[in-house]
Amino acid sequence: MSVIRVDVEAPDRRAEAIRREADEPRSPLVRFGLDKPLRLDAGVDLAPFQVAYMTYGELDQRRANAILICHALSGDQHVASDHPVTKKPGWWETMVGPGKPIDTNRFFVICPNVLGGCMGTTGPASCNPATGEPYGLSLPVVTVRDMVRSQAMLLDHLGIESLLCVTGGSIGGMQALQWVASYPERVFAALPLATAARHSAQNIAFHEVGRQAVMADPDWKGGRYLVEGTNPSRGLAVARMAAHITYLSDAALHRKFGRRLQDRETPTFGFDADFQVESYLRHQGSIFVERFDANSYLYITRAMDYFDLAADYGGVLANAFKGTRSRLCVVSFTSDWLFPTSDARQIVHALNAAGASVSFAEIESDKGHDAFLLEEPELFAITRGFLEAAARARGLPPAKG
Amino acid sequence: MSVIRVDVEAPDRRAEAIRREADEPRSPLVRFGLDKPLRLDAGVDLAPFQVAYMTYGELDQRRANAILICHALSGDQHVASDHPVTKKPGWWETMVGPGKPIDTNRFFVICPNVLGGCMGTTGPASCNPATGEPYGLSLPVVTVRDMVRSQAMLLDHLGIESLLCVTGGSIGGMQALQWVASYPERVFAALPLATAARHSAQNIAFHEVGRQAVMADPDWKGGRYLVEGTNPSRGLAVARMAAHITYLSDAALHRKFGRRLQDRETPTFGFDADFQVESYLRHQGSIFVERFDANSYLYITRAMDYFDLAADYGGVLANAFKGTRSRLCVVSFTSDWLFPTSDARQIVHALNAAGASVSFAEIESDKGHDAFLLEEPELFAITRGFLEAAARARGLPPAKG
Repeated sequence: MSVIRVDVEAPDRRAEAIRREADEPRSPLVRFGLDKPLRLDAGVDLAPFQVAYMTYGELDQRRANAILICHALSGDQHVASDHPVTKKPGWWETMVGPGKPIDTNRFFVICPNVLGGCMGTTGPASCNPATGEPYGLSLPVVTVRDMVRSQAMLLDHLGIESLLCVTGGSIGGMQALQWVASYPERVFAALPLATAARHSAQNIAFHEVGRQAVMADPDWKGGRYLVEGTNPSRGLAVARMAAHITYLSDAALHRKFGRRLQDRETPTFGFDADFQVESYLRHQGSIFVERFDANSYLYITRAMDYFDLAADYGGVLANAFKGTRSRLCVVSFTSDWLFPTSDARQIVHALNAAGASVSFAEIESDKGHDAFLLEEPELFAITRGFLEAAARARGLPPAKG
Repeated sequence: MSVIRVDVEAPDRRAEAIRREADEPRSPLVRFGLDKPLRLDAGVDLAPFQVAYMTYGELDQRRANAILICHALSGDQHVASDHPVTKKPGWWETMVGPGKPIDTNRFFVICPNVLGGCMGTTGPASCNPATGEPYGLSLPVVTVRDMVRSQAMLLDHLGIESLLCVTGGSIGGMQALQWVASYPERVFAALPLATAARHSAQNIAFHEVGRQAVMADPDWKGGRYLVEGTNPSRGLAVARMAAHITYLSDAALHRKFGRRLQDRETPTFGFDADFQVESYLRHQGSIFVERFDANSYLYITRAMDYFDLAADYGGVLANAFKGTRSRLCVVSFTSDWLFPTSDARQIVHALNAAGASVSFAEIESDKGHDAFLLEEPELFAITRGFLEAAARARGLPPAKG
């Protein structure tokens, strides 16, 4: 049958694995008790809750060399080391590691799993202590600001008063901007990549399609699939396929696949994956469902949709950055049609209007939105230079070698 | 529950309605018997088969004033009169009718339902005479060239040797181009709109997502839902939602909806359709499944994916138009990112290289791909002018009034 191959044979085992990773992740963890609730934008307190995270490198004596990396929708805390589920390398090993642009010989890198995620930070797959069952949709909807609040609590726990830099792409970049707005005194520098100060109507629309694909899957069961022992793999795979197209570009798809056929000379006149691009997309869908929780997909996309930084500041984005002493570098990519350069310019204009220190780079690339995750020498050079300048300005010792 | 509302209560009634419209449509019909098979690109003969169509206006004595309109993916033959299922006006009433740019006081307009469709021309919902059941996936995959072949047989039946003009947008435009390539002597003029000579990798990718959404719906039942009395409405609705985004533009979505909320002042912090754009998309999904057959969606998208006019001519597009005496006008829209102007230019360059008579217009519009269906005064003026010139060149009497 010409449909996506997903492991629908063992939903019980799959549900068990998701629940285990959500509650007992294979990474460091901080648990906040009833005495330290997370006040959510939805108007409720979340307690207890937990944040799972990874660190790389060492915190210096002044506690001044910490860099917070905020991952994107489908990412997690395993930024620069093997993923415990897929066993694949970290999602940003080109950027983060010893001698890399974000140099773990020099900087102390912290990457938390995002609030609402499924890799150990409280999310819909986590156990609701009130019921002993996974939250599912009973977890309140979280926002980017909530995510950042939870990260601030993690930093308190780690004894880090102020970050040398906060960075991330896409919703990770939204978090970086939110950090500057919410905790300007804790952010020395920020490097938001491929992002926007608010999610566009078209982006909300694409997210809504993904959510509907998940919720249309009968195995979603109103979000209670982990309890019912099912798994909306087919719906989540379709959501991932649709989203994946938006992460690339027409040019990149043309260059990578064009109209080339997959392992055949002539079309089959059927609904098999005749074209390489179809085969590639199906693969993207099926590997994603092996490691990701469908409800987390709903929560994190919703947080992106709700993101509108100016709205919290009387509709004037510059007010979000008023008086900030953080230094920023904003980066966009020419072929990113999800977060086009015009979005980046809005951020830069607002920072200028707020009198902030900001530089801006639009990087020529045909790789689309995903460019920030890929081999982009110009991005590496900019990151290296920006961090070097920030480190120098903060009085860190110069890089060795 | 915050999912698309689709009528899943009465799949039997729905299946019955689809089968009836496919076999006994409420429009004129020509049946071709076993003696007149349609030779398909897939290498098999389809017989018997039928073509349902609508006509408007009157054929003149010279049989020289016929205009063939080829509808797009989700269209049908009801171009300028009420739709028998939805009771809504025809899909192109702004363009076609008495005194309209395609003036039915002057021209004889023919609009057939496309091969593979579900409104009376043979498609997967049609009865397979060999089994007495709907074809489902046992219908061979059809191509744009097959569609055009079936239309040529319809014209033979109507006694029309040669068309004054063939026009259509999107896959309708592909058919117009295929007409010029396959039957140059039967096409006096052609007006392909918002189209391409081949489907891009990105467009194939979006189609594949839609097909997977349909096929992931358990009610699809391997394509046998009409026999089994189910209906993959949820999958088809998701497919339509994803596709619908690609028919618009970022700017149009921003202008129409922005980040405005639907019937509420503040976000609900839930998965309801908080934003107007979500509500709009869900509506598009749910009305589509009321009138369209899911398998037809698979077949017609597949035909578009397979379309690569140059491939039939040694990879040289100009050879498809070699020696043609047809006059063409190619139209694109600035904000159409599905069939961008660069696609139109490829067609124009090939026509130029073939020494054909061609004019080209890129119309400024923020309405995206769907612009060809909408109120676009410049498109109306171009169509009127082009048809007037073609009519004059063919010796038709001048327009009255």
